[in-house]
Amino acid sequence: VAEKRYLMTPGPTPAPPEVLAAVGQPVIHHRGPDFRQLYAEALGRLREVFRTEQEVLLFGGSGSGAMESAVANLCSAGDPVLVVSAGYFGERWAAIASTYGVELDHLRYTWGEIPSADDVAARLREREARAVLFTHSETSTGVVVDPQPFASVAREAGALSVVDAVSSLGAVPLETDAWGLGVVASGAQKALMTPPGLAMLTASPAAWQRSVSAASPRYYWDWERTRKGQSTLDAPVTPPVNLVAGLNVALRMLLDEGLEAAYDRHRRLGRACREGLKAMGLELSSPDDDSSAVVTAARAPEGIDSGELVLLLRDRHGVTLAPGQGELKGKIFRIGHIGYYDVFDITTALAAVELALVELGAEVERGVAVTRALEAFEQTPV
Amino acid sequence: VAEKRYLMTPGPTPAPPEVLAAVGQPVIHHRGPDFRQLYAEALGRLREVFRTEQEVLLFGGSGSGAMESAVANLCSAGDPVLVVSAGYFGERWAAIASTYGVELDHLRYTWGEIPSADDVAARLREREARAVLFTHSETSTGVVVDPQPFASVAREAGALSVVDAVSSLGAVPLETDAWGLGVVASGAQKALMTPPGLAMLTASPAAWQRSVSAASPRYYWDWERTRKGQSTLDAPVTPPVNLVAGLNVALRMLLDEGLEAAYDRHRRLGRACREGLKAMGLELSSPDDDSSAVVTAARAPEGIDSGELVLLLRDRHGVTLAPGQGELKGKIFRIGHIGYYDVFDITTALAAVELALVELGAEVERGVAVTRALEAFEQTPV
Repeated sequence: VAEKRYLMTPGPTPAPPEVLAAVGQPVIHHRGPDFRQLYAEALGRLREVFRTEQEVLLFGGSGSGAMESAVANLCSAGDPVLVVSAGYFGERWAAIASTYGVELDHLRYTWGEIPSADDVAARLREREARAVLFTHSETSTGVVVDPQPFASVAREAGALSVVDAVSSLGAVPLETDAWGLGVVASGAQKALMTPPGLAMLTASPAAWQRSVSAASPRYYWDWERTRKGQSTLDAPVTPPVNLVAGLNVALRMLLDEGLEAAYDRHRRLGRACREGLKAMGLELSSPDDDSSAVVTAARAPEGIDSGELVLLLRDRHGVTLAPGQGELKGKIFRIGHIGYYDVFDITTALAAVELALVELGAEVERGVAVTRALEAFEQTPV
Repeated sequence: VAEKRYLMTPGPTPAPPEVLAAVGQPVIHHRGPDFRQLYAEALGRLREVFRTEQEVLLFGGSGSGAMESAVANLCSAGDPVLVVSAGYFGERWAAIASTYGVELDHLRYTWGEIPSADDVAARLREREARAVLFTHSETSTGVVVDPQPFASVAREAGALSVVDAVSSLGAVPLETDAWGLGVVASGAQKALMTPPGLAMLTASPAAWQRSVSAASPRYYWDWERTRKGQSTLDAPVTPPVNLVAGLNVALRMLLDEGLEAAYDRHRRLGRACREGLKAMGLELSSPDDDSSAVVTAARAPEGIDSGELVLLLRDRHGVTLAPGQGELKGKIFRIGHIGYYDVFDITTALAAVELALVELGAEVERGVAVTRALEAFEQTPV
């Protein structure tokens, strides 16, 4: 039985020791000067990471809470809403929107397909929508779309674009203001390298305006109450102070590295992971290009259940990868490379996959994955 | 400037070092066996602390989230609801219920008054209600009511009793099943000695039945989704795994002490605090009896602003007490004695108050508070 643990899922992701140390500090009062200072710092740093001049609202909760916050503050029952889905988290948008009684139009792709802004534009010509809910990085499949054209076609149709950026924020480029995104929802437990329990959201002036007339009930996830509290650094409810302290450290580390450098690192990690998997003879199920910089998915070899592979890796070798979800259960496994990762995490994951596949009787080429991954990581980015 | 910090507010409260150590451990995956085991343990221990055979639902978020969860899962817009308030957190019930568009009947006492079940019964005879929302321990005033007669009069009138037990759970007696409470909402950052970020709720079979027909939209705070996830230890959203690890340790400590012993300790801490404050000549604003075992409130001496006293204590002496909220701002200060507290925390608080009052020019009798507090703590409980 493995003693040492390697967390290599696409979320939660490993937190740096500095972040864990901050999270484990004694509890401080949320209305005192010690907390106010780090609250102000964290909120300021979030604006930098979201690339926005707007307030970033910070909630205790998971990324799904931020997604619900978007729906609750933008929609009234009966509002026409378009959901674009091509995987597990796209389906979540549909589930949340349905709960709020919207008139749901669902542009549903097969899991793993890459949604297209042209399809969205065509759909919006057929049927009006107040908001278009879509996924930046679909964690269940490894597909990352460029949000910009989606935002454009939504805007042209008079709809707000609402982006699930939970697993993408801080890992791949996202320009809230420059791309005219309506709402961006995210969480801290992915590329923001913080233990789970914090959700965040930013809204454009147009989205704020729309929220005034949205009739859905909301208290905890309400934008205006949260903004009002944040404006005087007086949180509207008791925030998870220890997690905010951790987030503040993690954001400082991310901004010290630089967002562009972090994006570049994630791109290169994705490339290393893909090249390593292919070198040992596996077939990718996530896109084989630099867009796929968050999570890499591969098919298990013929005759091997990917769930069994993931269990073996975890129980015998201490390496936690992610299995396939929903339609992809048993077929694929996923390696997350988000946040506090470097190339040696990729080589560890690849070495462990190689070892476990051999144990399961698969024919894989030995010894090439790690070397190929290191080479691919070092190549100049495109 | 003080270097050492003493957190003596009625929430968040200090977490034991063992709990902080658990919170600062490396992040683990929420669908793996390490987390499932501690999730199962924590959920089982919560049932013991709530004294219920029902499932305790565990959410990432604050206690207000659990309160909103109660309203969203029990009420449809237009439902008649009675809110009983006598302070800041009673007002929060009214704010949340209003948001959900209920037909609100508000039995509103002056802050610091002690609500009576007879008043509630009379009100329910005048006007029907589907649910009665009230506060077990009103943290803003130090008043703790006995929930049992409130539950009885609600039940007799065909209404569900819904209790805010955020600051009371684990500090003073609360028997969810034996008292027939409809819904109990709480948080982990008070007597459960865990850094903030976890909310919990339990519902009676009658409340579960009512939730089926409640039409308010809810996703994150939805009971059925959460119960379904918990039933297979597969959380419906990514839970704050590090905080759950801390909660699990804290609950073990609380249950090792024993709930009755913890209730007794809180009663004696309350008594010690009251006797010490009175000994130095201060007037209590919370009730001067053993019901008041969670937070003790006292008036600042004539001519002294209680907010100024709290600031001086914090900035010069490192001791964080709580000021008055709302109507009581500037008039009272509050000493929390919830959770990880013993009598030397009380004597520290009293010694610091004595010192700061002298610095502010008040006439207080020196040197008697600490001795009187120790005596009162040792006296056999009534």
